[in-house]
Amino acid sequence: MTDFIRPGQRAADALRPVRITRGFTIHAEGSVLIEFGDTKVLCTASVEEKVPPHKRGSGEGWVTAEYGMLPRATHTRSDREAAKGKQSGRTQEIQRLIGRSLRAVFDLKALGERTISLDCDVLQADGGTRTASITGAFVAAHDAVSQLLAEGKIAASPIRDHVAAISVGILQGQPLLDLEYVEDSACDTDMNVVMTGAGHFVEVQGTAEGVAFSRQEMDALLALAEKGVAELVALQKQSLGLV
Amino acid sequence: MTDFIRPGQRAADALRPVRITRGFTIHAEGSVLIEFGDTKVLCTASVEEKVPPHKRGSGEGWVTAEYGMLPRATHTRSDREAAKGKQSGRTQEIQRLIGRSLRAVFDLKALGERTISLDCDVLQADGGTRTASITGAFVAAHDAVSQLLAEGKIAASPIRDHVAAISVGILQGQPLLDLEYVEDSACDTDMNVVMTGAGHFVEVQGTAEGVAFSRQEMDALLALAEKGVAELVALQKQSLGLV
Amino acid sequence: MTDFIRPGQRAADALRPVRITRGFTIHAEGSVLIEFGDTKVLCTASVEEKVPPHKRGSGEGWVTAEYGMLPRATHTRSDREAAKGKQSGRTQEIQRLIGRSLRAVFDLKALGERTISLDCDVLQADGGTRTASITGAFVAAHDAVSQLLAEGKIAASPIRDHVAAISVGILQGQPLLDLEYVEDSACDTDMNVVMTGAGHFVEVQGTAEGVAFSRQEMDALLALAEKGVAELVALQKQSLGLV
Amino acid sequence: MTDFIRPGQRAADALRPVRITRGFTIHAEGSVLIEFGDTKVLCTASVEEKVPPHKRGSGEGWVTAEYGMLPRATHTRSDREAAKGKQSGRTQEIQRLIGRSLRAVFDLKALGERTISLDCDVLQADGGTRTASITGAFVAAHDAVSQLLAEGKIAASPIRDHVAAISVGILQGQPLLDLEYVEDSACDTDMNVVMTGAGHFVEVQGTAEGVAFSRQEMDALLALAEKGVAELVALQKQSLGLV
Amino acid sequence: MTDFIRPGQRAADALRPVRITRGFTIHAEGSVLIEFGDTKVLCTASVEEKVPPHKRGSGEGWVTAEYGMLPRATHTRSDREAAKGKQSGRTQEIQRLIGRSLRAVFDLKALGERTISLDCDVLQADGGTRTASITGAFVAAHDAVSQLLAEGKIAASPIRDHVAAISVGILQGQPLLDLEYVEDSACDTDMNVVMTGAGHFVEVQGTAEGVAFSRQEMDALLALAEKGVAELVALQKQSLGLV
Amino acid sequence: MTDFIRPGQRAADALRPVRITRGFTIHAEGSVLIEFGDTKVLCTASVEEKVPPHKRGSGEGWVTAEYGMLPRATHTRSDREAAKGKQSGRTQEIQRLIGRSLRAVFDLKALGERTISLDCDVLQADGGTRTASITGAFVAAHDAVSQLLAEGKIAASPIRDHVAAISVGILQGQPLLDLEYVEDSACDTDMNVVMTGAGHFVEVQGTAEGVAFSRQEMDALLALAEKGVAELVALQKQSLGLV
Repeated sequence: MTDFIRPGQRAADALRPVRITRGFTIHAEGSVLIEFGDTKVLCTASVEEKVPPHKRGSGEGWVTAEYGMLPRATHTRSDREAAKGKQSGRTQEIQRLIGRSLRAVFDLKALGERTISLDCDVLQADGGTRTASITGAFVAAHDAVSQLLAEGKIAASPIRDHVAAISVGILQGQPLLDLEYVEDSACDTDMNVVMTGAGHFVEVQGTAEGVAFSRQEMDALLALAEKGVAELVALQKQSLGLV
Repeated sequence: MTDFIRPGQRAADALRPVRITRGFTIHAEGSVLIEFGDTKVLCTASVEEKVPPHKRGSGEGWVTAEYGMLPRATHTRSDREAAKGKQSGRTQEIQRLIGRSLRAVFDLKALGERTISLDCDVLQADGGTRTASITGAFVAAHDAVSQLLAEGKIAASPIRDHVAAISVGILQGQPLLDLEYVEDSACDTDMNVVMTGAGHFVEVQGTAEGVAFSRQEMDALLALAEKGVAELVALQKQSLGLV
Repeated sequence: MTDFIRPGQRAADALRPVRITRGFTIHAEGSVLIEFGDTKVLCTASVEEKVPPHKRGSGEGWVTAEYGMLPRATHTRSDREAAKGKQSGRTQEIQRLIGRSLRAVFDLKALGERTISLDCDVLQADGGTRTASITGAFVAAHDAVSQLLAEGKIAASPIRDHVAAISVGILQGQPLLDLEYVEDSACDTDMNVVMTGAGHFVEVQGTAEGVAFSRQEMDALLALAEKGVAELVALQKQSLGLV
Repeated sequence: MTDFIRPGQRAADALRPVRITRGFTIHAEGSVLIEFGDTKVLCTASVEEKVPPHKRGSGEGWVTAEYGMLPRATHTRSDREAAKGKQSGRTQEIQRLIGRSLRAVFDLKALGERTISLDCDVLQADGGTRTASITGAFVAAHDAVSQLLAEGKIAASPIRDHVAAISVGILQGQPLLDLEYVEDSACDTDMNVVMTGAGHFVEVQGTAEGVAFSRQEMDALLALAEKGVAELVALQKQSLGLV
Repeated sequence: MTDFIRPGQRAADALRPVRITRGFTIHAEGSVLIEFGDTKVLCTASVEEKVPPHKRGSGEGWVTAEYGMLPRATHTRSDREAAKGKQSGRTQEIQRLIGRSLRAVFDLKALGERTISLDCDVLQADGGTRTASITGAFVAAHDAVSQLLAEGKIAASPIRDHVAAISVGILQGQPLLDLEYVEDSACDTDMNVVMTGAGHFVEVQGTAEGVAFSRQEMDALLALAEKGVAELVALQKQSLGLV
Repeated sequence: MTDFIRPGQRAADALRPVRITRGFTIHAEGSVLIEFGDTKVLCTASVEEKVPPHKRGSGEGWVTAEYGMLPRATHTRSDREAAKGKQSGRTQEIQRLIGRSLRAVFDLKALGERTISLDCDVLQADGGTRTASITGAFVAAHDAVSQLLAEGKIAASPIRDHVAAISVGILQGQPLLDLEYVEDSACDTDMNVVMTGAGHFVEVQGTAEGVAFSRQEMDALLALAEKGVAELVALQKQSLGLV
């Protein structure tokens, strides 16, 4: 056990305040600013009437994602990836994760031969940027799909379920939900969990930063994540006016 | 003469509504969201206690800028430069322009051996992103300098004057101030003018897109720009509480 | 339930034949060919008496990994990453995973300011190249450490425990251990599990390729993985003459 | 006022000796060595019977430019851009400027679906390489067009007017025409002006290196530039036997 | 003359033990491990039913090669070219040499519009990696061709003759055949000779590392190479069951 | 035998007219325009008072070379390598060859810890650009060394002998000296030979483009090359006023 106190005296199993602002910018088919506490990510969904080579002629669409961080989203300035001439391994890992997560709830056949590109750009970072990105990208994608439906380009929604993500970790023996930056840097184990609205797992990525974790700890973390994702899905529905 | 009517019936010599929001994000020493109508640029100023090689040991500091556009800041999605692995010629031109413009009002000796990096990231584009960037970057740099003064790291401000920028152009024979996207695409001549608070020129970049322009037209454009920059400088002062 | 029959009538909870050949090449401090059935990976451990910048002067060492696949390790030829001029996102993800996994069992303080680089090059691929890489890299690293001990460069081994990895997945409802290529391509869920000799988790990376998986399925997969890693650790010990 | 004396006692409003040598190399459709004093640029015009993607099927042609400097064109050796693997921001700015300047006098419709590529390579630099490039590229392009006419590939010349360029600047308060290197390095303001044979402006790019410049100074610079370009256009005509 | 004694008391005109293992890996159409003493190169031949742009529609095929070295094939670890983002000049030189050498004995017309890609990856290096690559790549290409013949895709073999390669050099005045690493580093002159089964030259690449070499020395080296290649061709035939 | 007639009825064993112009540009320590018929290469030698890392603190200097071709040096325009972002394998091969050739006649100890960089830029190509580069680079290097001697920076010349290069080839059975472009494209065998003033070999690079060549043909080619290089060395001496 521990007497670790979370910033703002947040409970171990509580999310930070989550805010979802739709229509944050005007050009994209879906544009969502999502905030998990001080983490702010702009998620846009762009629809393009073309697919990558491996889908051409298949009758199926594609959903993909890119991720970026503004140089001063963080405490100290990071190099701009465009200026360095390449995306870091971390960036690529995250954008591949976002893309897989969204595709997990999309019926690509029902989408038709078009692509939805999700751009997740971190304006301000305080831990959990990848989980906020997935959660916000779902809402942006949903708005883009609504527009396709409204325009009569598709007859039925290709979205089969919600998808959202949260981080969980163990700090000084205490399982915590939705790690912010100071917690993330200090914790022994860190896990990102992506789940559907139905409560099934899409991705589980757990890493022992320091001490390896036991099966029992893993079970505790998964339970926390289930609670957190359920709350996020409720917030998505509320934001989209689905409840 | 012409009967071209500007969007929103704006007068030919009127700026779009300008909004300057300081402290838009929390980590940077200066963080400003500047809006010229629907153009929105986040300008952050980061102070680093080091200088590039050509200034090491000189006792002088450096002021530099980087510019980027989120992929869906525009009507149709543009490729992410970090993913493409290089910045376009246009991006480099713009960030070099921002850097030179800011250095024009900085006393690098008085700054001491440290660097102020200005990151101008376009969240939403509707023409005039480079002029908004320069105008906003000045305010962010001013905030960063205020912090250096407050911390006692420098004794006097290295900022010698304001700097701001505006675009002007000729559309169907009519000189216009502060072009928005539909005007910019259609106009024959397009000029970006960077000026100091004292009303002197720092940069003048005029381009005939279609028909070359006469000396008389040039004079009309410069006069419009002088008016526009004076208004922007007044807005900078107001935002900074200097009036 | 299912009547899916594994290639070679392998049991659902059986590893493929594993072969560990130490001293496969002559120059490296550790050089191991590891085979999981038809998957063959050459893992070398190189000791260098220097550390990356973030460890300089810390008194601590570093353990890192790189991963590659020969162009014709696979059924059809893949482009050579050196010729394309960059490593794919997949390659970077895998080598970051291998590095983290090995560091999880290393006492970097006890290693001293030197680096062990683990190069995992796939000569022949048939599924499970990342898990074979981790399992083989551990043996190569152990050989490199033995040499450091023999040369008196370090007084005690910085290796705190074994580390090994295995893939598990669900195919037609059936949880399977150690997926080979045809299984991996077909399965709904795919999880890579990295564990210590003590049976604790270092990394868990599960992905639903098609249908999201339930908590119950997750539990079944973790149990299978625990069995598989325990067998791999026994094989590592046998290969190293530790039993 | 000032008693600054120009190298070679050149008058403040005098060009350096300009020499235009057509047919400098044998393969290109146009090949011109242009010299502004010690600045020597080889400008070749290459005709290719294809257009870039954005012009395909448009019935219009394209005119584009690339710029380079031999590593030892300058006082001290500069890195070769091909070896560094990228063109500097400065190089891209200059080649974009040359391309726009030439397109300003071309009727792309009359050119037909073909491309004229202007390669401007600086063999020896002493200030004014971009203005010499534009002035020489026009002559090379004219020769390439003459060949197209002679071959009957086009019926009428797509060239609507001459285009030429000159630099002007203010040094110790004195406006100067056609800056050479030592003047360029020392001057407070530096402006490159591109104009047509009809005396209209195509590009104006002025930069205050040190002190911002007044409207009055700007007027003086523009007048000097008008004089210089008129002389260059006369020299182009003489070189092309058009007078 | 000299009293230099070769490692293992090898005669000056003797090859190292050569071993050719066909079918070393399972996926490639040809897969050969070739060993020249401690130098071990895996050569795979991949058949693809497409040709590069310059051969499309020509009715002719193409034969090409790529070369790589595992990071720890050498005494000290070399950087991985995929991680550095480019192939060294040395790598490119070698793979171009291998490609030209193989094409010299191929009738590209008889191959039909398909490509044979030869990947030569050095698992362990001890001098002579490029000559081993050429010699082994021939055997791999021969196996790939045999498969094309067996499948009835081609009616007659496009291979007109054997090709093999060996290095020769002068060390302390003594001409030596098949240099191993310690000899290669020390010798004054180093020559790689590629010849056909008929005893004609395909490539001769001689370099004076220290002292330039005389015509007489060149003649001695060519004679040695002729002897060595003849022996290698005999070993190729034996390995392929052609004798 | 053959009745092939060379352009301009040149004899089979004759060089094209060779012209060496010293002091072609003004900034470099050595600057030579060398012409082999219509092939024109600008060779500059730049002295820098620093050495690459592998020579630091060794008391030895370094001699290196870079090679480039202007885009329209050739019959049809080639892509600019700086714009493509990398040097081709051919370019790298040639510049490595030039560097090795020059180092073969340099006493790096006597040069002292400084670097001579030879930039060979082809202004116009008609075959033999690499041999012209080597031959011209020697003269440029000699001029740079003369300046170092004149300035008293070195006491004795580090140049031990001349170095020059020529191409030879077999066309329709006829050995030819100094191939121009149409011959080079058509010939079966092509060899570049680099030799010292003393008549010794520095580099021999022979390639059978079509039919492999016999030992007898090789002997004929080497004899032709010896004649050609001897003439080039005489021309170098004459140009340098050494005779």
